[in-house]
Amino acid sequence: MAKRSLPLSRVYRLLEPGPVVMVTTARAGRANVMTMSWHTMMDFEPPIVGCVISNRNHTFGILKATGECVINIPTVEIALKAVGCGNVSGRRVDKFERFGLTPVVAARVGAPLVDECYANLECRVVDARMVPKYNLFILKVLQAWIDPARKDPRTIHHRGGGSFMVAGRTIRLPSRAK
Amino acid sequence: MAKRSLPLSRVYRLLEPGPVVMVTTARAGRANVMTMSWHTMMDFEPPIVGCVISNRNHTFGILKATGECVINIPTVEIALKAVGCGNVSGRRVDKFERFGLTPVVAARVGAPLVDECYANLECRVVDARMVPKYNLFILKVLQAWIDPARKDPRTIHHRGGGSFMVAGRTIRLPSRAK
Repeated sequence: MAKRSLPLSRVYRLLEPGPVVMVTTARAGRANVMTMSWHTMMDFEPPIVGCVISNRNHTFGILKATGECVINIPTVEIALKAVGCGNVSGRRVDKFERFGLTPVVAARVGAPLVDECYANLECRVVDARMVPKYNLFILKVLQAWIDPARKDPRTIHHRGGGSFMVAGRTIRLPSRAK
Repeated sequence: MAKRSLPLSRVYRLLEPGPVVMVTTARAGRANVMTMSWHTMMDFEPPIVGCVISNRNHTFGILKATGECVINIPTVEIALKAVGCGNVSGRRVDKFERFGLTPVVAARVGAPLVDECYANLECRVVDARMVPKYNLFILKVLQAWIDPARKDPRTIHHRGGGSFMVAGRTIRLPSRAK
């Protein structure tokens, strides 16, 4: 899909609503993708993102070793693929092949973009001090991509136990927040 | 509203979808409430929550001093109140009075619950080491309350610039995640 570069100052608009995301990593020519819900914006620009990745996940070791990943944001159209990626380990399965996902070369990091996702954030680990205690990686977004044709992305939001909320209508409120 | 105690193991189901929340604190007999979107679950049980609160906010100093707060989760019915609380500072305004919010005494912390919110999480700061650099507080949820009558909470999710997504329909997917 044709994407345009998204200003880094707007990255928080993608992540702040708390969507389920797909994290890609790569090592030794082999890419992996996992599903993640535990992330938060930590600063606007450069966009800083905190995310918790269990040390039992295959991604954990790759991210620690390479310091690079892409946060890809899926919508409900590919919800089954996104959830499927969370059900199997990249230790045993090439998930791109299994779920028919298309890896695209990123601009700033070695991990690929997932083309089917409407937005992609290329990230570098900037602080790993909280990894030993909390599995918390602090990421800086280096480059963000978005599908400009996608005006109303129906992101999915994990409610637990196989239940997912699909993004509903958008309302305008007189907020002074950024 | 009549609430029942929510098992701590289910707290992540409230926060993981990334809703806008209202954080209450109290000091010297005076309660305050602020609006927040930057939070993430960090562990299931006891529930550990990371949240970023700007050091420019009135809440920041109170939370640092008292180490206690309540995370209250509003729904779209009170979206104007929630957003209004984010537009003014507790330094100048009693926001409970201004927005017609009802403070209810909490069980485990000095900060009050916001009665109008469908869920309330009483929290204690368990790690403040990341506060100087990132304004990141690590909280442990001590007690959680939920309105059992509320089956399909229409939480609001900040998209930035006065735009908020309202929680839509719920779908079931074959996820193995907790």
